[in-house]
Amino acid sequence: MSRILRLNMTDRTFGWQDVPVAWGRLGGRALTSRIIREEVPPTCHPLSRANKLVLAPGLLTGTPAANAGRISVGGKSPLTGGIKESNSGGLVSSKLARLGVKAVVVEGKPDDGRWSLVQITRDGVEFHPAEEYAGLGNYQTMARLWERFGKGVGVVSIGQAGEKRLTGASIHFADPAGRPGRAAGRGGLGALMGSKKLKALVVDDRGTPAVPLADPERFKQAARRWAKCLKEHPVSGQALPAYGTAVLINIVNEAGALPTQNFRRGRFEFAEDISGERMAELIKQRGGKTKEGCHPGCVIQCSQTYLDKDGKYLTSGFEYETIWALGANTLIRNLDEIAVIDRLCDDYGLDTIEMGCTLGVLMEGGIIPWGDGAAAIEMVKKVATDDPWGRIIGNGSVFTGRALGVDRVPAVKGQGLPAYDPRAEKGVGLTYATSPMGADHTAGYGVAVNILGCAGGGDPLKKEGNVELSRNLQVATAAIDSTGLCLFVAFAVLDNPDALPCILEMINARYGLSLTGEDITALGSQVLKDERSFNREAGFTKAHDRLPEFFKEYLKPHNVTWDFTDEEVDRVLEGF
Amino acid sequence: MSRILRLNMTDRTFGWQDVPVAWGRLGGRALTSRIIREEVPPTCHPLSRANKLVLAPGLLTGTPAANAGRISVGGKSPLTGGIKESNSGGLVSSKLARLGVKAVVVEGKPDDGRWSLVQITRDGVEFHPAEEYAGLGNYQTMARLWERFGKGVGVVSIGQAGEKRLTGASIHFADPAGRPGRAAGRGGLGALMGSKKLKALVVDDRGTPAVPLADPERFKQAARRWAKCLKEHPVSGQALPAYGTAVLINIVNEAGALPTQNFRRGRFEFAEDISGERMAELIKQRGGKTKEGCHPGCVIQCSQTYLDKDGKYLTSGFEYETIWALGANTLIRNLDEIAVIDRLCDDYGLDTIEMGCTLGVLMEGGIIPWGDGAAAIEMVKKVATDDPWGRIIGNGSVFTGRALGVDRVPAVKGQGLPAYDPRAEKGVGLTYATSPMGADHTAGYGVAVNILGCAGGGDPLKKEGNVELSRNLQVATAAIDSTGLCLFVAFAVLDNPDALPCILEMINARYGLSLTGEDITALGSQVLKDERSFNREAGFTKAHDRLPEFFKEYLKPHNVTWDFTDEEVDRVLEGF
Repeated sequence: MSRILRLNMTDRTFGWQDVPVAWGRLGGRALTSRIIREEVPPTCHPLSRANKLVLAPGLLTGTPAANAGRISVGGKSPLTGGIKESNSGGLVSSKLARLGVKAVVVEGKPDDGRWSLVQITRDGVEFHPAEEYAGLGNYQTMARLWERFGKGVGVVSIGQAGEKRLTGASIHFADPAGRPGRAAGRGGLGALMGSKKLKALVVDDRGTPAVPLADPERFKQAARRWAKCLKEHPVSGQALPAYGTAVLINIVNEAGALPTQNFRRGRFEFAEDISGERMAELIKQRGGKTKEGCHPGCVIQCSQTYLDKDGKYLTSGFEYETIWALGANTLIRNLDEIAVIDRLCDDYGLDTIEMGCTLGVLMEGGIIPWGDGAAAIEMVKKVATDDPWGRIIGNGSVFTGRALGVDRVPAVKGQGLPAYDPRAEKGVGLTYATSPMGADHTAGYGVAVNILGCAGGGDPLKKEGNVELSRNLQVATAAIDSTGLCLFVAFAVLDNPDALPCILEMINARYGLSLTGEDITALGSQVLKDERSFNREAGFTKAHDRLPEFFKEYLKPHNVTWDFTDEEVDRVLEGF
Repeated sequence: MSRILRLNMTDRTFGWQDVPVAWGRLGGRALTSRIIREEVPPTCHPLSRANKLVLAPGLLTGTPAANAGRISVGGKSPLTGGIKESNSGGLVSSKLARLGVKAVVVEGKPDDGRWSLVQITRDGVEFHPAEEYAGLGNYQTMARLWERFGKGVGVVSIGQAGEKRLTGASIHFADPAGRPGRAAGRGGLGALMGSKKLKALVVDDRGTPAVPLADPERFKQAARRWAKCLKEHPVSGQALPAYGTAVLINIVNEAGALPTQNFRRGRFEFAEDISGERMAELIKQRGGKTKEGCHPGCVIQCSQTYLDKDGKYLTSGFEYETIWALGANTLIRNLDEIAVIDRLCDDYGLDTIEMGCTLGVLMEGGIIPWGDGAAAIEMVKKVATDDPWGRIIGNGSVFTGRALGVDRVPAVKGQGLPAYDPRAEKGVGLTYATSPMGADHTAGYGVAVNILGCAGGGDPLKKEGNVELSRNLQVATAAIDSTGLCLFVAFAVLDNPDALPCILEMINARYGLSLTGEDITALGSQVLKDERSFNREAGFTKAHDRLPEFFKEYLKPHNVTWDFTDEEVDRVLEGF
């Protein structure tokens, strides 16, 4: 039976809790958001003792289901002040599931301010002093922890940004090569982990049996069909394995929705230089790897190993969002410079989307020149030093805007906007405005329908149908985020009528249930209700479901504006 | 007839507007808040073109009424994100009134980013280029403007902090000696003025007739009685003229409500060293002046000229709040060091309360040592330089807390707490929590009753009666802030039954009205309604009417805590 593991950082003790009946069918985001909703005072300071950090594998994690190895991380966000779920790949999720840990709840904080690391194995839970790792980046931390605890153990860690409790800080998860390219990036949860003085979690599932399945044969059949669904879809079966998510650079640029120079226009004239095609070409030339999974059981393999021009490892998990944020948004067109910043962000533990928006604001304020990759690299390096600029930019785009008196800041609820201009992809724009997470493309990815043409397609430039699209996707995504499945399964789910039945079949075979599609929708709805009610009590209103005023400007090349009325925006999550 | 002057900073033009009937009986805060409520989109970015800065003399300003020379400054606050009214003394208010200007509304901002100054005289309004003043502090700015436009003209200006749009920036008003010791300090309105690229307003009333009075004889009688009320009250007639507002240091310390070391305890062992009595002694020793008015017609004279040990002018308008914030709160016990910081704040244009709370947070975060005045001075000096620390601390306590990952930050709605611990002066604590202004003692000064014993007195340590006290004082204060009267008239109003009738009589004699006490209460209520409804639409809820969690700690010496329930707090402004 799975249990809840509670880590009390105040006195460095732990306890096991049986899963309350009401939480029994929850996993991933559904569980993190429920625990935060029930246990964290919505008006508390996000860095205070009262906040909690929750990590939860999904309902299918640990099973042989393809792409089910995601982990949800939740808390009151130090960046937005609202509830947050950010999810990641990496090794840890399936190991926790195999160890029978349904969630880890990190509580309290130590009066002596000393760092700990917590080791979770088949034999129990142990707190270790971690002062020796303080000040290290994620690369070194993970390398040292593999050395100490064994190659292949799961590691969750924060870098210097999380240690400093900077609200742009992310939490990193070792990938199968022991690198920190995987992150719960958004919402500053690294600062929350830092406030608990928890430098790292080490999760070692050696010696544990496989996750129990109520009906192994039924599961096996469904899992086989499921993997086929993923491999047969052109996005998850071909485009992502070939070029990674960066395949989107040319596509979104073509659609006129690639935010360029701090959301001034929708096309970047040098998009080709930073495209997925260009990246794949460089990787091949230099002897890197174009295809890698972020967790065992991934059949999509959208990650990669990116080498520098001398053939030395530079970065991995080099995503479209990252390349856009640090590239088109800042006018930096040199992929190697962008890769260096990505590497620094992974090492210090910084959200690359937030950092890209932040660099755009720094350029807006005249602190560094547009397109100057070398200057951007020097600025980012300050995060790991005592330089106060590091404290400014490490706190994200809105914070940096305030430091500079810049009012052109692309953010909602304090979180920087991702890589699709809301004027030229109105579906995801509504998600930015209304998601309880703040501006987040993964919370309801209209792009899949409007730009990538899934589910019959839509018109990204027109308002029609997008209120419903954003709402339906937000509900569906909340459900998927609760299963432990990677969001990239959504392409198959949208286009292949066999995909959703496969997911249901796997869940039912895992737990001996007979859930229907309606139950899954109800789960997604319940997640949004938990999250929205937390946010309401934390002080969020409709006024926070708004894009910045400057999106009233017309966007080239399509000359489109953000033309939704407040009433239309408010209809997206009405009733939640 | 008075008119509204609109300054369009986008194209540097101006226009005169007849006063709409609905605004006819509004002045000061009632007028600024009404204009902001009606004309500023509540969700706009405070530094965007859509925000407006409004300056309005009160209903009695410009008349011979004693202490009627205050000016209200309003806008959407760059510090809190809510509506703001901050008022100040100085020369400008009565000059605007004599020029027939009921309000100045500053709108738009220039695309070329160039600085202007605006000159208002009997002959009209003129925009002048002001690049030559950019980068100057308020002391030099005011001196140069007196040199250029004539000694004695009214000046409103911002220093380097406002120019940089830092959200702790204040707006300064020349006092009768041409010094910037008078400020609309709170809420970062200096940043709003800076965003408009308005370096200064020069107001010259030479050649204007006296303000018209509907019934001069009736006015004269009432004004004479009124001045007597002020002079006869022991606070406004004796304590304030003798020691300035700093007379409160020993009184509040004695009451155990002097927040010491970032609100850790209620008594400062070196209070005597920074007391009003000590200040008066030093001023006399060094040949300064213990008594000065901040505007013509002041009979209280709570200002002063504070000289350094060599007899050179150091500062003026050296208030209790300032001395507490920069002194007891930071453990700095050297009055000269505190005076230097006050001088720097006046020069750069920084709110001293916010800066004191910010220095406390810097010390909390270990950036400078507790009680180290020299280190604090060096930090404050960075605000006028390119050092990024200046950008951090100039943005106030909450911002600095986030930069440092410090969660012990004494603030409500983003604004730092003033000089009375809410646990040991519960009446003002409720005002901090609920005022639409954020933490603000002047919005409903329970101290007058609970600690100074006005209106029969109260118990500052007990909850009883304070919900009603805070509500009634907030309504009454909103009305007083609309008259142009200095808040220190409140002592007489609370204790002398003739005071309120005098105020009514003067307003009626000025305008030919027959307002009653109920009308004045209705005016105050309407102000709060305007402000609360703006804030609601800007996204404020009950969740924002809360003190930080750490006020649950017990405060020495009385071992009191913040023991109001949320429901009790919410009753304070229920219905507004």
